[in-house]
Amino acid sequence: MTFTYSPIGEFRTPFKSVDQIPRILGEAPTAEGTIRIESAYEDGLLDIERFTHLIVIFAFHKSTAKPLQVTPPGQQHQRGVFATRSPHRPNAIGVLTVELLRREGTTLFVRGVDVLDGTPVLDIKPYLRHFDCRPEAGSGWLTEEHI
Amino acid sequence: MTFTYSPIGEFRTPFKSVDQIPRILGEAPTAEGTIRIESAYEDGLLDIERFTHLIVIFAFHKSTAKPLQVTPPGQQHQRGVFATRSPHRPNAIGVLTVELLRREGTTLFVRGVDVLDGTPVLDIKPYLRHFDCRPEAGSGWLTEEHI
Repeated sequence: MTFTYSPIGEFRTPFKSVDQIPRILGEAPTAEGTIRIESAYEDGLLDIERFTHLIVIFAFHKSTAKPLQVTPPGQQHQRGVFATRSPHRPNAIGVLTVELLRREGTTLFVRGVDVLDGTPVLDIKPYLRHFDCRPEAGSGWLTEEHI
Repeated sequence: MTFTYSPIGEFRTPFKSVDQIPRILGEAPTAEGTIRIESAYEDGLLDIERFTHLIVIFAFHKSTAKPLQVTPPGQQHQRGVFATRSPHRPNAIGVLTVELLRREGTTLFVRGVDVLDGTPVLDIKPYLRHFDCRPEAGSGWLTEEHI
């Protein structure tokens, strides 16, 4: 059983290569970028600008390796890949919460991007506090590392 | 350009049909269920039990329609599908934050499921407060509806 998806758009970000993406463990990204939605999907954006935050599901399109365990950047211990946000994973799908600054037609201006320029976007959903915000969540293995 | 993914496991939930899934606008789901990971991916679970919450990416495998605008259940207004959490969308991918109660081998016991029994799981990531929790997020069009 497999599932096949076609991008609905792509990220435009300041990051042309992975080493340009700032990563600070324990801090959310702050860079601004855009999401350019293909014109065929414009009707699907109705009212999206009413939301302040979006969840973006995307493809880690440059990822080829699919290790089951990884050592996160700057860390000492190997972890199961499902206990990390590594782009290298069995299904190279990413999820990112961004702040929606404004919409101009099929372009969404967003803050909080940490993905490569040109990253294919598979889906966008409104961020809903009651579903998505869990202030009581622990920090797992991060608490014993550098934060 | 397309991206093809194979499930890493599946949800087991109390819900055998869509009409059994309780949906209360503005409230997170509370039902318990399990995620059964295929044994081939067991090594990828190392240390996942250190986290209290997980983000699960899954396929809305029963969804066939791909409307660009939908009227959410119990609502009066049509919205762009990307401004809703509808299962019927161009790429029928879902994202759900659950509480991880415990792990037994390749079975994750979780709270907060609102998906059909047998739903294919594509990826699991640790929920990280600094990435994923946005208490300042607004409620978009929900504020003018029933909450």
